[in-house]
Amino acid sequence: MFQSFTSTADRNAGPARLGALQLQMKAHGITAFLVPHADEHQGEYLPERAERLAWLTGFTGSAGFAIATPKTCVVFVDGRYTLQVKEQVHPDSFDTESLIETPPSKWLEQNTDKNDVIGYDPWLITTKQICAYEKACKKSGATLKPVENLIDRIWDNQPDAPLGKAFIHPVTYAGKPAEDKLAEVRKKISERDCQLTVLTDPASIAWLFNIRGSDIEHNPLALCFAIVPAEATPIVFIDEHKFDGETRDHLENLAVISEPDTLVEALGETGADTSVLCDPNLMPVVLAETISKAGGKIVEGPDPVILLRAVKNVVELEGARQAHIRDGVAMCKFLCWLDSQNPESLTEISAARKLEELRAENALNMDSQLKEISFDTISGHGPNGAIVHYRVTEETNRRFENNSLYLCDSGGQYVDGTTDITRTIAIGNPPEQAIRDFTLVLKGHIAIATARFPEGTRGVDIDVLARHALWQHGRDFAHGTGHGVGSYLNVHEGPQSISRRGTEPFKEGMIISNEPGYYMAGEYGIRIENLVIVGELEGIDGGNTRTHAFETITLAPIDHRLINPSLLTPDERNWLNHYHKEVREKLSDFLENDEQDWLRIMTAPI
Amino acid sequence: MFQSFTSTADRNAGPARLGALQLQMKAHGITAFLVPHADEHQGEYLPERAERLAWLTGFTGSAGFAIATPKTCVVFVDGRYTLQVKEQVHPDSFDTESLIETPPSKWLEQNTDKNDVIGYDPWLITTKQICAYEKACKKSGATLKPVENLIDRIWDNQPDAPLGKAFIHPVTYAGKPAEDKLAEVRKKISERDCQLTVLTDPASIAWLFNIRGSDIEHNPLALCFAIVPAEATPIVFIDEHKFDGETRDHLENLAVISEPDTLVEALGETGADTSVLCDPNLMPVVLAETISKAGGKIVEGPDPVILLRAVKNVVELEGARQAHIRDGVAMCKFLCWLDSQNPESLTEISAARKLEELRAENALNMDSQLKEISFDTISGHGPNGAIVHYRVTEETNRRFENNSLYLCDSGGQYVDGTTDITRTIAIGNPPEQAIRDFTLVLKGHIAIATARFPEGTRGVDIDVLARHALWQHGRDFAHGTGHGVGSYLNVHEGPQSISRRGTEPFKEGMIISNEPGYYMAGEYGIRIENLVIVGELEGIDGGNTRTHAFETITLAPIDHRLINPSLLTPDERNWLNHYHKEVREKLSDFLENDEQDWLRIMTAPI
Repeated sequence: MFQSFTSTADRNAGPARLGALQLQMKAHGITAFLVPHADEHQGEYLPERAERLAWLTGFTGSAGFAIATPKTCVVFVDGRYTLQVKEQVHPDSFDTESLIETPPSKWLEQNTDKNDVIGYDPWLITTKQICAYEKACKKSGATLKPVENLIDRIWDNQPDAPLGKAFIHPVTYAGKPAEDKLAEVRKKISERDCQLTVLTDPASIAWLFNIRGSDIEHNPLALCFAIVPAEATPIVFIDEHKFDGETRDHLENLAVISEPDTLVEALGETGADTSVLCDPNLMPVVLAETISKAGGKIVEGPDPVILLRAVKNVVELEGARQAHIRDGVAMCKFLCWLDSQNPESLTEISAARKLEELRAENALNMDSQLKEISFDTISGHGPNGAIVHYRVTEETNRRFENNSLYLCDSGGQYVDGTTDITRTIAIGNPPEQAIRDFTLVLKGHIAIATARFPEGTRGVDIDVLARHALWQHGRDFAHGTGHGVGSYLNVHEGPQSISRRGTEPFKEGMIISNEPGYYMAGEYGIRIENLVIVGELEGIDGGNTRTHAFETITLAPIDHRLINPSLLTPDERNWLNHYHKEVREKLSDFLENDEQDWLRIMTAPI
Repeated sequence: MFQSFTSTADRNAGPARLGALQLQMKAHGITAFLVPHADEHQGEYLPERAERLAWLTGFTGSAGFAIATPKTCVVFVDGRYTLQVKEQVHPDSFDTESLIETPPSKWLEQNTDKNDVIGYDPWLITTKQICAYEKACKKSGATLKPVENLIDRIWDNQPDAPLGKAFIHPVTYAGKPAEDKLAEVRKKISERDCQLTVLTDPASIAWLFNIRGSDIEHNPLALCFAIVPAEATPIVFIDEHKFDGETRDHLENLAVISEPDTLVEALGETGADTSVLCDPNLMPVVLAETISKAGGKIVEGPDPVILLRAVKNVVELEGARQAHIRDGVAMCKFLCWLDSQNPESLTEISAARKLEELRAENALNMDSQLKEISFDTISGHGPNGAIVHYRVTEETNRRFENNSLYLCDSGGQYVDGTTDITRTIAIGNPPEQAIRDFTLVLKGHIAIATARFPEGTRGVDIDVLARHALWQHGRDFAHGTGHGVGSYLNVHEGPQSISRRGTEPFKEGMIISNEPGYYMAGEYGIRIENLVIVGELEGIDGGNTRTHAFETITLAPIDHRLINPSLLTPDERNWLNHYHKEVREKLSDFLENDEQDWLRIMTAPI
């Protein structure tokens, strides 16, 4: 269960593996092969067997793409990974490109011609993605060709598809029987004038059927597919080895269970008058083509489950509040312990280990229902804190130094809720500049936490509130302000977000992170992250518009040693003092005496 | 030149005119006829002959649409005009619909079938709009049929196309020779791999060739079209009667001049290998089809002039600053005069007339270069101020009452710049609530005026700054925060805006309005509008991001009698005091003694 701090990258194996791939390409008559960082479900976290990009190139980032050609292999990464990729791939065989400035479609347009045949695995490329490649090939003259995955041919000891245990997510936590959810989804399918939909996102299937699984680290998912008709019985395509009898009974009451390899055959029977609702961001090309060949009509639209699962019901919301109390206790114990240590005795790994232990211990003391951590802890001291998606390994592990900052972003998967919290902690006496920057980030955090906004407001509309104080000081952070969070599901989920791309209107019951930051390259990173719930619409005396507000549910002190109170308005100070009072009142009873003393100091009004 | 306060609507003529139209429809074998509020140029303000919607239905709003059928005529308007349309159209012959909830395309989908033939004038419908109608007809089974404009057949005494004088806009005001502008536009055409573009927006042609005109009230435009090739000489399609010799010589140095009715013929000669850049939001269907029939390829993209003209050069910016000094003097004289009057002696019309007189007088005193007002003054007392697009007529004219608010939104077309300013003025002692609401609007105005923002920031990203204080009090306003403003061109221009739809990144040199408001239906309206210039990117000590700031150029006091200073932060008070100091320093010299005294009081620090 515990996080591993070893790196899975193998830089030196790359050239030979690429050579083997190039032989396969030649045998299959293709001059380029696409290697996305993706599985059949377009998941953010992949099962080991789908880590083809890392296996081939050595690059282990969470986003990337490669195109292998007879001469080279180009690895595409975004700004977060520009440095990392150079260290991880072998320079003799691999080139690198910007995923943003020269995305693969643009690269193909510029670097292929009519003699080129571009092979791709149609399970890993979505219908939306293939449009961009088709456009590029139309311009360059090259041909696109779906092929079997050539890496699977050459990857000795490629892990099998995972067979983690699937289990029932009881309605006492889910808050709504699967039958009711199914009725809602069916209504959505009918509203789009469709006869069925194909669900490829395991999180959607987990939510819909009230099941969870153990196929992917940190994400309680069972990898599977489902066909959900507007009227007939759904079919879930899942390996039967994942079930015990009880779970099978639960699912068989709701759906027909079928083996995964029967999915294509089933879709091949789509009738000529059948309209199938498909999410172009999720739908593998192979499935869309199967439907089209069978005469079915593809109707593009978002996965009908996504918005339903983003809006939590009252049971899920109460579960989230309770999970955050238990998680807050673990965080307080951790932060108190951290303060008691000699900085030189700490490393990023030892701190992350201690935090995971405390979350796990809590499971015993508080019946915390912790299943696992919700993602690899980002434990970054000093300059490592400035690397937004830092993942500590034995190689990068830093020993703490005095008068510095430590950034810790972590979370837990509790049966009743998923948590995600970032705190930035003063180690000794950090420099004035860090205190000023922390206070600016805090102002942004408070602006989001206290914002009221009318019905229909989207993340893009309020994102600036998190940045305004930083912008006024010529500062910014290069990530979104917030993402959706699942209910004992993925720690990152859509469709809502607080960012430039956040075009989904907020709805009462959504859970979102509030995590502005500031990163001073080579020196320190700052981030303050709490989760918030979108509250109900309320009117205010004599106003003309009802508004939502956020309810902050994450509970842990925000380090007052990093705050310059003179930069805060009275309203901002009020918010902080009220928040700290709530943290103290909700957590104290679960702490030891010395921890209570520490919490009293850390939550004293400023 | 002076604004007219009579209404052009003729409610009682509607039924007979519709009857005549229905006979024409029958003769042409069509069962529905589309009547947009549009001319061939998709202008916001129409020449009289294009006011077909108003002529047919009696509805005079600035946005709307009608669909005539054998049985009725449905008039579509947005929320601003829901009340007005009911008063203006004859209920026996006309139904009304929401332009937002049931737009014409949706209405056609729901109310036509395979027996229907929908006629439209292909000069008035754009290629983007026709897509929506085609989609609707595909669903309903109806047929779309381009026809001549049937209203022109039945409109006795329909005005001719205007023949206002066109004239040179000297480079001393334009800041850049037309030759240089042409080179920039040609580069944009080539960059899109096109051989030519068709300009249908007279504002684009005016900017490109440094000409202005007199065809449309308030907009210094000459209605015309242009073909601009990437390499050969442009052709401007314009009625020669608009020219004197000098203007003709100026234009003939840059382009071939051709009569408007030769445009279709010219596009009919588009070669088979020719790609034509067309703006789908502007391009009439008839022109796009002419190009396609000739074998040309339509490449969709924004009018290549729009962004170029939105970014003002240093001469235009300095002109705008100077024009705003002269306009500010007129505004001060007006506000001072208003304060000296017995409220009961004032009406909305008398106030608007006085303001227009003062702007005109200034032309003599200050060599102000005023050409005309830039739009019909919105002069709204009390509850009329709450009607966002209020236009006072003899019928609606209100006499002022004491202890109320007066909202005045006006502007001037000066040779060196276009102005647009709104002030809300205390008449006597307005209620506490109005003062609180005014202060909240002011907080939003200041938040925009003082905002810094990084490169690439769009209007949608900062719109909330104007609303945040209102939202926190359950208040909002139902319009955008700001629109682009031309340089002695249209008072509303794109592509930038501060609103939910503002997806164009700000660029140094753009001019935008900053005009948050609050409207208490039946009681009062509040709006505070200044124009701002997007400043250059600047770094700040130790920051990681260069930022733009706005420079406010509108100069007139903001009524301190409507401000509750206890609701302002020290920074907000500072901004107001600095702004008022600048107003005083820049305008005092041009005012009479009593006006100077008044200004001193109105700009005293709070």
